[in-house]
Amino acid sequence: MFKLFYSPGSCALASHIALEEAGAEYTVTRVNFANGEQRSSEYLAVNPKGRVPALVTDDGILTETPAILAYIAQFFPQAKLAPLGDAFTFARMQAFNSYLCSTVHVAHAHRMRGTRWADDPAAIEAMKRKVPESVGAAFAPIEDGMLEGPWVMGKHYTICDPYLFTLAEWLDGDGVDLTKLPRVIDHRARMYERPAVKRAIAQERG
Amino acid sequence: MFKLFYSPGSCALASHIALEEAGAEYTVTRVNFANGEQRSSEYLAVNPKGRVPALVTDDGILTETPAILAYIAQFFPQAKLAPLGDAFTFARMQAFNSYLCSTVHVAHAHRMRGTRWADDPAAIEAMKRKVPESVGAAFAPIEDGMLEGPWVMGKHYTICDPYLFTLAEWLDGDGVDLTKLPRVIDHRARMYERPAVKRAIAQERG
Repeated sequence: MFKLFYSPGSCALASHIALEEAGAEYTVTRVNFANGEQRSSEYLAVNPKGRVPALVTDDGILTETPAILAYIAQFFPQAKLAPLGDAFTFARMQAFNSYLCSTVHVAHAHRMRGTRWADDPAAIEAMKRKVPESVGAAFAPIEDGMLEGPWVMGKHYTICDPYLFTLAEWLDGDGVDLTKLPRVIDHRARMYERPAVKRAIAQERG
Repeated sequence: MFKLFYSPGSCALASHIALEEAGAEYTVTRVNFANGEQRSSEYLAVNPKGRVPALVTDDGILTETPAILAYIAQFFPQAKLAPLGDAFTFARMQAFNSYLCSTVHVAHAHRMRGTRWADDPAAIEAMKRKVPESVGAAFAPIEDGMLEGPWVMGKHYTICDPYLFTLAEWLDGDGVDLTKLPRVIDHRARMYERPAVKRAIAQERG
């Protein structure tokens, strides 16, 4: 039995979808960011970094989306969510997820979390202004080839897909020109059709 | 035979050290960032993202430090650079490296690469000013427990260690108060003593 700590609209959705795809038994616990609950002593005992997702397992607690996603794929090999027997393809999958966390998510974060990187209010506004361009630039290499199609890694659905989908859900709010990302938007539409995605989204909104 | 594309002083050093630790046969090729070589058509054919590291393998090219590090550990199991048979501990290791790429490296990048996230020169200066604080804040949870000691994952040296070492090499230039990070600095000193680290550094400087 797993327990996933999440906040609606956060990158925790990727892990949530992966748990659904794997057929895992799990519960979810919402962390209320509006109340600053991620900074409460209770939550910091779960994740000292004060962020979501955090996945409670029988062995201990895991954080960081790429690590949680690969763990779910390894824990449920029958779900075939990763090329577990092929170190090179596994590494390519990891490279994709690493790019999402270190470049794509980070570009997006400059819209809402600018105080992490500057104190000057004008600087924080300057970061916000560039988000449509910087997030668009981060998605460009995905559009231009990293997303092989129909799924990220080609014909096999993997843990890259819920992660890409989760970050692509933010494109509208970030003001990115969607007409430049037709393949990413197609992928997003394809994801909406999956029952696991529908269940995870319904659970987060419910 | 592997070929590593690197730039001196970049995070490619982590993969370089791991290749040395694994006893891999490899060559290195320097990408001259001062000339903008990372944006040359030759290099973009290797890595369309225009960054280092990139590792050429017999199966194809890999990018993104956490992915390359885990690949080296899996390709050379006899080097025991990762807990390959234990999905939970492997995920904890991956979580550490994911935190380094998405939070620690990103905080540092605001000193030199602010143009990624803002256009206004005053905003870019504001980002630079906060780097001593933001990089220090990113290292705080490492100091406070993520670094178990003597190595990141405890008594076993893993691919987390060269990556932490590489980013800790930037602390001085980032103006971080080193007196608040005694365990990180001890780890760095311990790393300098390793022959593989000495060889990788000598090769990059030679």
